[in-house]
Amino acid sequence: MPCRESFILVCASFCWLLAFSPGASAESTPPLSEATEECLSCHSLFSPGITHDWRRSRHASNTVRTAFEKPGKERRVSLTSIHQIGDALGSVAVGCAECHTANPDSHEDTFLHNGYRVHVVVTPADCAQCHPLERKQYTKQNKMAHAYGNLHDNPLYHSLVETVIGGRKIAAGRLERLPSTTATQMDTCYGCHGTRVKMLGLKKIETEMDVMEVPVLQGWPNVGVGRLNPDGSIGSCSSCHPRHAFSIQVARQPYVCSQCHLQPDAPGWGVYKESKHGNLFRSRKEGWDFDAVPWRLGRDFHAPTCAACHGSLVVDPEGAVITERTHGYGERLWKSLFGVIYSHPQPIAPDTSKIRNADGQPLPVTFDGQPATRFLIDRKTQKDRKRNMQALCQGCHSTMWVAKHFEKMDGTIADTDRAVRTATQIMEQIWRQGNASRENPFDESIEIVWTEQWLFFANSIRYASAMGGAQDYAAFHNGWWNMHKAIEKLKDAAHMK
Amino acid sequence: MPCRESFILVCASFCWLLAFSPGASAESTPPLSEATEECLSCHSLFSPGITHDWRRSRHASNTVRTAFEKPGKERRVSLTSIHQIGDALGSVAVGCAECHTANPDSHEDTFLHNGYRVHVVVTPADCAQCHPLERKQYTKQNKMAHAYGNLHDNPLYHSLVETVIGGRKIAAGRLERLPSTTATQMDTCYGCHGTRVKMLGLKKIETEMDVMEVPVLQGWPNVGVGRLNPDGSIGSCSSCHPRHAFSIQVARQPYVCSQCHLQPDAPGWGVYKESKHGNLFRSRKEGWDFDAVPWRLGRDFHAPTCAACHGSLVVDPEGAVITERTHGYGERLWKSLFGVIYSHPQPIAPDTSKIRNADGQPLPVTFDGQPATRFLIDRKTQKDRKRNMQALCQGCHSTMWVAKHFEKMDGTIADTDRAVRTATQIMEQIWRQGNASRENPFDESIEIVWTEQWLFFANSIRYASAMGGAQDYAAFHNGWWNMHKAIEKLKDAAHMK
Amino acid sequence: MPCRESFILVCASFCWLLAFSPGASAESTPPLSEATEECLSCHSLFSPGITHDWRRSRHASNTVRTAFEKPGKERRVSLTSIHQIGDALGSVAVGCAECHTANPDSHEDTFLHNGYRVHVVVTPADCAQCHPLERKQYTKQNKMAHAYGNLHDNPLYHSLVETVIGGRKIAAGRLERLPSTTATQMDTCYGCHGTRVKMLGLKKIETEMDVMEVPVLQGWPNVGVGRLNPDGSIGSCSSCHPRHAFSIQVARQPYVCSQCHLQPDAPGWGVYKESKHGNLFRSRKEGWDFDAVPWRLGRDFHAPTCAACHGSLVVDPEGAVITERTHGYGERLWKSLFGVIYSHPQPIAPDTSKIRNADGQPLPVTFDGQPATRFLIDRKTQKDRKRNMQALCQGCHSTMWVAKHFEKMDGTIADTDRAVRTATQIMEQIWRQGNASRENPFDESIEIVWTEQWLFFANSIRYASAMGGAQDYAAFHNGWWNMHKAIEKLKDAAHMK
Repeated sequence: MPCRESFILVCASFCWLLAFSPGASAESTPPLSEATEECLSCHSLFSPGITHDWRRSRHASNTVRTAFEKPGKERRVSLTSIHQIGDALGSVAVGCAECHTANPDSHEDTFLHNGYRVHVVVTPADCAQCHPLERKQYTKQNKMAHAYGNLHDNPLYHSLVETVIGGRKIAAGRLERLPSTTATQMDTCYGCHGTRVKMLGLKKIETEMDVMEVPVLQGWPNVGVGRLNPDGSIGSCSSCHPRHAFSIQVARQPYVCSQCHLQPDAPGWGVYKESKHGNLFRSRKEGWDFDAVPWRLGRDFHAPTCAACHGSLVVDPEGAVITERTHGYGERLWKSLFGVIYSHPQPIAPDTSKIRNADGQPLPVTFDGQPATRFLIDRKTQKDRKRNMQALCQGCHSTMWVAKHFEKMDGTIADTDRAVRTATQIMEQIWRQGNASRENPFDESIEIVWTEQWLFFANSIRYASAMGGAQDYAAFHNGWWNMHKAIEKLKDAAHMK
Repeated sequence: MPCRESFILVCASFCWLLAFSPGASAESTPPLSEATEECLSCHSLFSPGITHDWRRSRHASNTVRTAFEKPGKERRVSLTSIHQIGDALGSVAVGCAECHTANPDSHEDTFLHNGYRVHVVVTPADCAQCHPLERKQYTKQNKMAHAYGNLHDNPLYHSLVETVIGGRKIAAGRLERLPSTTATQMDTCYGCHGTRVKMLGLKKIETEMDVMEVPVLQGWPNVGVGRLNPDGSIGSCSSCHPRHAFSIQVARQPYVCSQCHLQPDAPGWGVYKESKHGNLFRSRKEGWDFDAVPWRLGRDFHAPTCAACHGSLVVDPEGAVITERTHGYGERLWKSLFGVIYSHPQPIAPDTSKIRNADGQPLPVTFDGQPATRFLIDRKTQKDRKRNMQALCQGCHSTMWVAKHFEKMDGTIADTDRAVRTATQIMEQIWRQGNASRENPFDESIEIVWTEQWLFFANSIRYASAMGGAQDYAAFHNGWWNMHKAIEKLKDAAHMK
Repeated sequence: MPCRESFILVCASFCWLLAFSPGASAESTPPLSEATEECLSCHSLFSPGITHDWRRSRHASNTVRTAFEKPGKERRVSLTSIHQIGDALGSVAVGCAECHTANPDSHEDTFLHNGYRVHVVVTPADCAQCHPLERKQYTKQNKMAHAYGNLHDNPLYHSLVETVIGGRKIAAGRLERLPSTTATQMDTCYGCHGTRVKMLGLKKIETEMDVMEVPVLQGWPNVGVGRLNPDGSIGSCSSCHPRHAFSIQVARQPYVCSQCHLQPDAPGWGVYKESKHGNLFRSRKEGWDFDAVPWRLGRDFHAPTCAACHGSLVVDPEGAVITERTHGYGERLWKSLFGVIYSHPQPIAPDTSKIRNADGQPLPVTFDGQPATRFLIDRKTQKDRKRNMQALCQGCHSTMWVAKHFEKMDGTIADTDRAVRTATQIMEQIWRQGNASRENPFDESIEIVWTEQWLFFANSIRYASAMGGAQDYAAFHNGWWNMHKAIEKLKDAAHMK
């Protein structure tokens, strides 16, 4: 009899283990706020995809209080005191209402929805209720938060944007330029950089349930990294922590970065996936733990992803910190590889639209290679940031290995800058010869050849060198092959020998 | 003693669970037909890869009867009555013989093989023994089933095909065109579109076992979606349900679609993988259940794949239907993004080779943009189909989100059509100027520039807009960058200002 | 009481199973050598990523003796007798010291490190302590081992390399060529082909621990397949078995090959991933066992990866050998698809730099298509190698299927060779006309068009045909589309009709 009991008990605990191991156990589910209960009563039916995704998320199985009580590096909220949040928020799951009804007065897009003051666009300011440090770092130290203005408010970049995405029509036998449309803006540059989301007013629409009055928003939907939000905040946490699991597991995998950091212009993903790090990630990731906090190098994962190098809190298997978490990605970056038009030290401020070089251009370097030094970080800061990155490299590689790797990268970057200078000299000759007009330096056939040189090929080579081991991106795939092919074309156009 | 027994029992059941959990249990394996037993007696030795793959498949662990007895939406066979199949088929596993000896009289490729009338090419008509509705929908409502004729029997497309894949040689100092070879046809266009498989006769060949007489088939091997089969049927189920597991798990993942729906011409896969949906799929798919029928949004999966939007039966977590299963992919498509040369409403009939526009061209739109209305679906049908798609979007997104997404898509599509019109106007000027010959509008250097405009770039932008969030496919990667670069080249060739 | 004990025992063994199933059990962990203990005492702190990766590896959980004792095909070491290794090595885990202190006298890069004679660059000669057959096959039969010399010592290829990666500057109004830099060499061609690693001397550096004297190595870090090592050996095992797990699991997945075998020049990975084999791998790989030796087709995996076709020991589910393991990848290859400039039979010797064709060029074929027969394998050898490959194909496909597949491939290869011949004839006319100089046949704009023809497009089509089912790589994506577009450009440049 006791044997029978023990048998049953063992089987039961076995089943229990099997059943609950991947998700959260029923017991640990915290209570929901009344408001969230009400949201779910309809939206479980009308938006089942996101509500059920949320139900299995960390937000659904924790209160802010339990999250705050996690010891040391395991903590995922950045409150310094639990009193920073109200009692109500502390004792319920982080559900629909906790985010979509936060800070209603600052949200232009607040509307009355079944008696609640709800907003559609959840913003970094809303997330900052529990994650204030992340929001601060992102806003103050990350160029991505300023991606809208850095593009839109830089007159030269704005002219490039309009040249690329503006329309073309024939009128009176001539090719004429049209301004870009909102639709095309949203599908191209501002899809990644973020849109300006404006509240236009309320509108009655028919939904599955009833006629409802809802906000009409311009520049939305959008999850660009530098979105200008209807509450005045900038950025979108769900760019990298997509809805409605908001999981660190997604942010730590390179796929989320790949949506924007793509060849030909910003080939981070292409380069990463063909690197040795990328090979290891793709071959072994099924055995890695992308959810563990802190993230233990050598246990939870065995090769870096984008997040590991640029933002994650990484510890060694005994828990000693290798790199601290940061949402200011500049902290581990000293050079800008995305040269416009040459590589250069990272800018001091994340808002780069104010940079002016010695020629008065809104660029970090002049066409003949002089950096706009007062807008760029100094040598000491460069060295400090390089050391931050190297700390992580040394988690696997020897001091000498790391030194030689970056020595090689410096050499290759100098090579690309020299090649861009050569191409630019030829382009300048073409402009002087009157065979192209410098008024808009990006729009004629030969100018497009020159633009691809620095916008695509030099970047590609520099990224391949920096991440290491993606040789084709430096050679034949938008690399030196294309660089020199373009120089030959420029030479032909300049009638140069 | 009883304790010892309970211990052993527990260990045994534990081992049993571990051993059998991924496959089917021994008990549930249905009997094999005598014919299949005989197939397996040799082919387990001579084709171990496919026989063992089949052994772990649903076909091997079910009879049609057990499949038919599944309740409601869990049923994977589309028989309306179990009497539609014979008693024999109902009581055995769906093995080699059940498919390869079906309908022997209609199969030109039937041959005598160890006493059985066997055919090599299993066709939709064979699969229709158990899956008649899928076959009917695919054949009657899916352009893919007609992909061979839609290419081969459209004189303009056929001329494009021959221009692309026909040979070139120098004869008497001139470049001459050669007709395409069977080998190159099979490796290119007809690899995806499907070949015409013809029985040429029998041939004695040496096999590992013995000298055997086997059919010689032209246009084979091939698993193109519009294959013309030796039994007169069209299509190939194993295009998407590849041999010999025939698993829904493969058909529901985007990789199978990616074989054909690839940049530069039909960039579905490229766009999907860089979209937010694709990011989620790639980051989280290990936790999804691709085998569950029906497919529960929010439980079995959290972001759509190609199949989810275009064909799958999707239910909410409580089992309520969101979208019904269809093998007629047109049911959720209203616009053709694959514009030749402009976007247009979907064709009424899946056989598009009969379409003629107002200029007499076998195209859905004239070069100056007039749609061939009587061959294309009307506004009401467009609206109905759009609603079918939107039902799925609303599984995760709000009514307004969805409305704004498609409003943006309509805007971008209009932008691409305008740009193609501009390019075509310049091309027409070049033809009028006599600097290219319109006789074959696809073969000269400048015509190739124009063709890429609509065949590659406009498609890419439209797909990126429709699926959302693959900004680089709309911008720099076969997008507006390339579109306007081509327009500049056309302008230069036309000596236009 | 005994029940309680059995209960505890069952729970314990259950936990034990759960805890240790993915890794090695504590009991089976062999002792470490004293030297390795000492390495780990510091490097567990200073290189936690690699030491912990190693701790979970097969090397850490086996001695050479236990590895040697594995029965038959399960054995992963290729010693013919356990006496080939010393007693010491036989009884400890294969740890840091066992590799990094092996053969100290032959290593130029040996240095004194905490009392041990250590070297940084572990080479095939070091791995050959336990894997002598693999090293021998790789060195003697695999072109990859000779990839450095095959590029560097072939004057024509070397000139192509310098044209592609050498610098460009403007001097006195002319475009001048600069020799390539070490940095760019390492990031491009020699990143894959391997560098010459030279010991330059010792240098004192500051490390996290102390000031240390370490070797300064030229051409390092590098894991190119044909690396010239400081001990005189060639190659790098960690190209495909990356550090520090050295797992067969990584080598058997295509990602590791993709680092170098990439479009546009060597599009193995691109083609594979879009093929039916690649679709199956990507959709089903989570259920496959990439670690099993021998590798059972139909049980451990259901569709081939690069390794399966080109190197792995593959058996049927009963254990009968389908193909033997080889690290000489030529054993299953008869044609070289990477045509420079035409396809041709594989070379006899893996060192191809000595090949001279009838025109005296260091190429396997003349520009007008005559193969350098005495350097290339004969018909019988071609047939034997083809049979080796076909044995694997027939694991899933019928004899006739396989025959027809290779018949199609032969046809397509002939088509590509014909097209390259046509392009070359036009290029020769341009050279004769004096519109380009044959002195360097790779550097002018029109020569670049011709080079892409055979270096990119013909290769792409041949690979797509050989692997089957990657139609876009034969059609629009670096395929016939690009081939014929280039021929039109050549024709225009030659003023040909």
